[in-house]
Amino acid sequence: MAGGHKETPGGEREGSPRVSSVSHLTLNRLSFYLRCLRSLQSEEVQRISSKELANRYHLSASQIRKDLAQFGEFGIRGVGYDVAQLIEHLSDLLGLERLHRMIIVGMGNLGSALACYFGFNSGAFRVVAGVDRDPAKVGASLCGFTIGHTDDLAKEVRRSRAEIGILCVPAEAAQSTYDELVAAGIRGVLNFSPIRLRPVENVAHKDVDLRIHLEELAFFLKEPLPAD
Amino acid sequence: MAGGHKETPGGEREGSPRVSSVSHLTLNRLSFYLRCLRSLQSEEVQRISSKELANRYHLSASQIRKDLAQFGEFGIRGVGYDVAQLIEHLSDLLGLERLHRMIIVGMGNLGSALACYFGFNSGAFRVVAGVDRDPAKVGASLCGFTIGHTDDLAKEVRRSRAEIGILCVPAEAAQSTYDELVAAGIRGVLNFSPIRLRPVENVAHKDVDLRIHLEELAFFLKEPLPAD
Repeated sequence: MAGGHKETPGGEREGSPRVSSVSHLTLNRLSFYLRCLRSLQSEEVQRISSKELANRYHLSASQIRKDLAQFGEFGIRGVGYDVAQLIEHLSDLLGLERLHRMIIVGMGNLGSALACYFGFNSGAFRVVAGVDRDPAKVGASLCGFTIGHTDDLAKEVRRSRAEIGILCVPAEAAQSTYDELVAAGIRGVLNFSPIRLRPVENVAHKDVDLRIHLEELAFFLKEPLPAD
Repeated sequence: MAGGHKETPGGEREGSPRVSSVSHLTLNRLSFYLRCLRSLQSEEVQRISSKELANRYHLSASQIRKDLAQFGEFGIRGVGYDVAQLIEHLSDLLGLERLHRMIIVGMGNLGSALACYFGFNSGAFRVVAGVDRDPAKVGASLCGFTIGHTDDLAKEVRRSRAEIGILCVPAEAAQSTYDELVAAGIRGVLNFSPIRLRPVENVAHKDVDLRIHLEELAFFLKEPLPAD
């Protein structure tokens, strides 16, 4: 699988020469474990077994052990995981130990919302630039940066030293904007446009479909089955 | 576990008397399988085994079988799953066979973006109403509805027959707005405000942290380890 290319539906493709055998579901789980552990840490829990972790957050203990074992030996049999240590390991694993600078392309409602979104401006992430085609928006200040013109995209990427591009452009502009970002040296793209991009080798890439959050909720809105 | 209450970190809590033993990770996977199957259907694949499905989308075959077995007998040993039938079953399972009417509270950048977001206005979902406190916004038309005033929230919920509320208000207004939505008869809430809500029994509830999409991408941006 080394050097392979993951293909997932809904256009979720990710490519990277070293890590391509890790599925995005595993990453979702690791990211989720990290949030579990941070939550435990805030309650001053210092050690936890895979079984306790699984019970507490409705996970599978064997899945937890399997996921973590891919990346090394973290727990001690019979003793469990050291919470602080595992947080550090997972943050490191997920690449969250350093700041990621980001540029937003398309400063419409979604782009503007993300520019000021707390989660996109805390910890390992910061929005440092944004561009738009609309002359009325260019030059305006927003949550710490001044909006540039889309024509200057490559220049803005270099000036801001952004490494992640966030695509919030209409579907018809998404592929060409993606290609421009890649040409400008962007290393990863988070795509909110509702199309599947043709990905470029060695550029990380994730298509976001916000509907998944609704689909999860819908399950809980089903009418209760009649008691039998 | 019947009648239990799931607690997940990052404020992801969901409650529902019948389905509380299904974890949100299982739901994420079911939703993901559904997208895999739709993608296969668009390629006119009619049958697939759990092993082929797993290989194609980098999943675990035993996990697929285990997840689906919770809800009945779908596949035939040695023959695999009927793609169309499984799509129907999963859609039904996930509650996607009927339309869900939704109201957005807080028509700032994020609320306005979601009101017109394709995924929130296709298939089983439609935004039918939205409210805001800003008099300059009230009365404006947007993607199929007219913005109402937050003071009329209960009236707007009843008039629009919304059953899902989407919270896009500032953190400090989130809990009181949630309580008002629940009092107005809303059955499920998707919360984009960056706080954990105190959930009400029998109201489905999901907190969305968009940072999870970035964390997944960050993993692929790690510098390749030096060859050893």
